Amino acid sequence: MRILGIDPGSVNTGYGIIDDRAGCPAHITDGTISTKSSVPLPERLTIIFYQMQQIIKEYHPDVAAIEGIFLAKNVKTVAILGHARGVLLLSAADARLSVFEYSPMEIKQSVVGYGLATKEQVQKMVRELLKVEYLPKPDAADALATAICHMHHYKTNAYLEKNLRSEV
Amino acid sequence: MRILGIDPGSVNTGYGIIDDRAGCPAHITDGTISTKSSVPLPERLTIIFYQMQQIIKEYHPDVAAIEGIFLAKNVKTVAILGHARGVLLLSAADARLSVFEYSPMEIKQSVVGYGLATKEQVQKMVRELLKVEYLPKPDAADALATAICHMHHYKTNAYLEKNLRSEV
Repeated sequence: MRILGIDPGSVNTGYGIIDDRAGCPAHITDGTISTKSSVPLPERLTIIFYQMQQIIKEYHPDVAAIEGIFLAKNVKTVAILGHARGVLLLSAADARLSVFEYSPMEIKQSVVGYGLATKEQVQKMVRELLKVEYLPKPDAADALATAICHMHHYKTNAYLEKNLRSEV
Repeated sequence: MRILGIDPGSVNTGYGIIDDRAGCPAHITDGTISTKSSVPLPERLTIIFYQMQQIIKEYHPDVAAIEGIFLAKNVKTVAILGHARGVLLLSAADARLSVFEYSPMEIKQSVVGYGLATKEQVQKMVRELLKVEYLPKPDAADALATAICHMHHYKTNAYLEKNLRSEV
């Protein structure tokens, strides 16, 4: 299974793709879709949408995992972030990918084992877990962590389902 | 000039198209893009995006006017509304339309002359101003009001610009 992780942002959107190879996450690619905050929002959304569509076309992920909105943030930030998430969800749904959402806490917990981990801790643990030689940039590392988080949740759910079935 | 007015919503998005005919707004069409709240958000966003793209292809507006986000609302509502606005701005920018934003108050003031007008007052005034025989549905009426609001602002700005130029 190939998982696309997304860390949405209206200026920088991180993405990271991993494969689930017999229970081990294997790094495929990662990066950041960057736009300038001086560019009007509709144009920024166009850049985010078409670049994400291109990434999906190139790497053919099976599912997408995206960071949920942290509602405790400032309402204006939430509104703008919502716009970026909207076009990212569209690009995933348009390619018929199922989309799974995880909270920032679940994502951090999944790679660092601690929900309040710093950005640097996430970057280092992602490098370690995926055995990449460079330190992924912060947003790309968050996206890779989101993909790893989905892999863990997916495996746990599959395990529970199997065990529940065997008890019936 | 043909103006597309949009009243964004994640369940019901109103749209309304008018022509500026020698200073008078002429009704071209209006309607509502409806999705079910039980449908997952990524699919709803896909419906909104493709239907709006279809409307733009069919009616060829020159500009789009959209209701701004009312930030005083509940943060979760703002987040979901942001997603819908994101794909609507994308559909407009993708068709190379300039997008103008107006606050709910400016829009109401523009058709009813009163910023706190009710939905019913907006519906009735829009029917009156555009001389349509039926009462446009609430979201479609708001979208038509947004288009009328843009026509007024555009004309005022054009007038001011002309007068400023003649004073130089």
